[in-house]
This record gives sequence, structure tokens and C-alpha cells, in this order.
Amino acid sequence: MKDPRRFTPKQIRALIRKGTWDKPTSGLAMGYAQANLVVLPKSYAFDFLLFCQRNPKPCPLLEVLEAGRYRTESLAADADVRTDIPRYHIYRKGRLEEPVKEIKRHWKDDFVTFLLGCSFSFEEALLRAEVPVRHIEENRNVPMYVTNIACKPAGIFRGPLVVSMRPIPSEKVARAVQITSRYASVHGGPAHLGDPSKIGIKDLGKPDFGEPVTIREGEIPVFWACGVTPQAVVMEAKPDLCITHAPGHMFISDVLNEELATF
Amino acid sequence: MKDPRRFTPKQIRALIRKGTWDKPTSGLAMGYAQANLVVLPKSYAFDFLLFCQRNPKPCPLLEVLEAGRYRTESLAADADVRTDIPRYHIYRKGRLEEPVKEIKRHWKDDFVTFLLGCSFSFEEALLRAEVPVRHIEENRNVPMYVTNIACKPAGIFRGPLVVSMRPIPSEKVARAVQITSRYASVHGGPAHLGDPSKIGIKDLGKPDFGEPVTIREGEIPVFWACGVTPQAVVMEAKPDLCITHAPGHMFISDVLNEELATF
Repeated sequence: MKDPRRFTPKQIRALIRKGTWDKPTSGLAMGYAQANLVVLPKSYAFDFLLFCQRNPKPCPLLEVLEAGRYRTESLAADADVRTDIPRYHIYRKGRLEEPVKEIKRHWKDDFVTFLLGCSFSFEEALLRAEVPVRHIEENRNVPMYVTNIACKPAGIFRGPLVVSMRPIPSEKVARAVQITSRYASVHGGPAHLGDPSKIGIKDLGKPDFGEPVTIREGEIPVFWACGVTPQAVVMEAKPDLCITHAPGHMFISDVLNEELATF
Repeated sequence: MKDPRRFTPKQIRALIRKGTWDKPTSGLAMGYAQANLVVLPKSYAFDFLLFCQRNPKPCPLLEVLEAGRYRTESLAADADVRTDIPRYHIYRKGRLEEPVKEIKRHWKDDFVTFLLGCSFSFEEALLRAEVPVRHIEENRNVPMYVTNIACKPAGIFRGPLVVSMRPIPSEKVARAVQITSRYASVHGGPAHLGDPSKIGIKDLGKPDFGEPVTIREGEIPVFWACGVTPQAVVMEAKPDLCITHAPGHMFISDVLNEELATF
């Protein structure tokens, strides 16, 4: 098989649709934005859209499809959100069922689809500027922490901000802030940097999600709002039904990361 | 009476609430962001919120209040959107009734309030950088034009992008782009600059709204997405009921224009 990093988004979506690719999508179709998926029945859609509007850093909306629609318009042509993600999680009243490879048979006409930006986009920009991304170097999942910062609630949706952490050499922190600030639609600039206790994190060695990474002498922990936030908030609200991508198994769009940068 | 430009937003809102100030708000509480108002029954709220999410340049949301709520949270403390705007327009099925000075007696528990950014914020930044703003110099209303660019539709809401135009000396155009790009939540960078016919404008001397302004030798017409867009789109959709501010009679927030700048 050809190096999957070199496939176009369209080629990878076709492989995923056929069930040939059911693994995580990290590193695939380099340069193109990947997206988180949240599908909710219409009755929850206004509140969740409002939650995203009020909390754009953890919940950067890339595209929202109206009730019943499963074809993206701005993120990709010829894509079907019911089949083009390698693995889905279905939650009923907050309880996770067995992961599935497509959701066609679960689909209903009142389902509203939300696609949210993902930090893969700005990590690529950091690496291009030779800002190290430790969890990639150490081949781990990024460490994530629940903070004491409350998101602005909307309807039934409420909960704390979850952040991801990347240790950055102090001489490169300003550059890391500048680069990620360009990507407002994929979490944007850091939510916090420096002392973790200021945002309620007790021990960087014990992340709430993901895996710990090495922090070297002279490095500052830098925290970005994380896409796990909306997932945690939705799970906490226990809607009758919610479908998401399985962690790491994202929707691959036709939009270049560079197109998401503000200027 | 003290110079109204020097009043605090809270002081002006109190005067407006009492009915003492019922004139346009341009130039009041310099430095503070003013906002456009759109109130719709809950049945239209998801579609309108989605329209704004899909068209952030003409529809930059500053705050959305859930059904029945009339007190702002992030834009101002102790403000009531039913009384704190000098003049309101009420439309029933797209038909304008007599302007009113408060909407308390019209208020219903299913009303959802949208407050949208206004170009007053970036004009102040342009003036501070000595970029001329012609309609202010000539004491006219900004010229606005209906373009041939379609907004992305959402539910019943659809229509063309409306732009405002400011002629800028060519040596200051780059600066004008840089400055306004910082204000993504108040229309952001230009939607177009140069040849008006490229966006379907036939005659700059005949704006669709507002008044024409002088364009001098060596100046380039620069076009920004305009807050009239959502108003025109809502009117076109003819909802059972819609309440807006009367043109020029805005909501004055406690948020500094500078706080709206991205970085």
C-alpha cells in the first residue's frame, strides 16, 4: 500500500467508506484539516450550537449540517459523515455502546451534525516552525487535563474547560503563541501558560486523559483549549442519543490547514 | 448636559432606559463596542444562529441570550435589552410597525436575543491610525451596496451579502486591511477591494442604503461586510415576528473595542 500520508483526503475517505482503513487518522493526508464529529438530535441542537458560540476556543465550529443532512458542503465535496469516519462512538443517555464503522443504519432525519476543529492543524504549523511537539516526538497521546475554568453554559450543556499541554522551550514560547493564534478555528492561542496550579491542575505527571510527556529543564508548560471539552460536556448532559468519532479517528477534510489561518 | 461622548456605557444605558436619550448612539461612550440587535421567537433561533455561524463576516455574534432572557451577561452588567436601546423596530411577517422606545410590553418567554458587532468599533481604530473615514468626515451615513455574493443559506434565511464602502488613499489600504483584520468579531478584514463591478456593484454614486461619499483621485474603494446583511435576510424571510434596533440606535456595551481585537 502507498504511504497513506501521501493519499489525498478524497482517496482516504474512499478507503474509510469501504472499511479498508479503520485505524486512527493522525498523520494521514498531511496538510489537510481533520475534524471532530458530534451528532445530536435536533431538540438539543440549538443549545449545543449556542454552547459552541459561547466557547469558541474549546469548540471551534468548522461546519454544521442542518437536520437530516449528512453531506458536508464547505469542508469536503462528496463526503458522507455517516460512513467517512473510521470508527464511531454511540452514546445513549451518556452510556457508550460498541464502537461501529458506519452509522447509516442508526441515522435519523432529525440528526444535526457538528464538525469541530482539531489541534492536529496547529501542530503541523508548530513543527514547520521547528517548535517541538513533545507527544509526537515521544509517540504518545497528548496529555489532557480538566481545569478549574468553567465553560459558559448553554441550556443543558455545562462543564469545565479541558486543556491539552505541550512543554515548549522558553525561547520558543512567544513563537508558539503567535503561530497558534493564527488558527482561531482550531483552538487558537493558548488558554494558559506557566504555573499549572493557577488553572487547577495538581500534577502534570497525571493527566486526566492521554499520557504524560517529558518536561525538560527550561521548558514552560503551555496549555491549549482541547476538543475533549465539548465531548465531556455532551457526555455529562446525557442526551437521549449522541454520536461522535472514536478518539483519534477523525473526519479528513479537503480544506488545507493553511486555509484555516486567519492571516 | 455633560458631553455624551464622556458618559460611561452604564450612564448612557440609564438615560436611554428612562427615555431621556432617544437619538442615535454614534459617538457616544467612545472606546466601547456598540451592538446590533435581532430578537426572534425560539422557533427561528436555530436557523438564525446557524446563519450567523456560516456567515461570520456579515453576522459577527457578540452575545446570544437564551429564550426569555433579556439581561446580557458578557457584553454588559445590569443591562436589559428590552429597554436599553433608544429605539426599536418591530416587524410582523416582514412588515414594519411604528418605532417604539421599549419592548417590555411586547416581550415573550420564547424570544431569543442576538447581539451582533458593528463597524463603529473598527472605524475608531482606523481613525486612531489616521486612516480617513470619509462618511464621518462628510457627516453622512456610510454608503452600503447589495452585492452579487450569496451568503451561505441556513433554513429559511438566505440572501446576498451587503457591504459598506470606505474610500482609502492607496498608500493606506494595506494598513486599513491590517487594522480591520484584527477585529474579526466586528466584520473583520475587507470582503473586497478595488473594482466594484467584480462584486456586482454598478454605480458607487448610487448606494442601496446610506448616502454616497466623495472618492478622491488616488483612492481605492474598500468594501467590508455590513451588519445590514442579517437585517435584510431576516426581513426577506418574513418571520411571524422580529424585533431589531432602529438603524443607528444601537446597544452600548461595557466591552472596550480593544477587547474585541484578536491580537
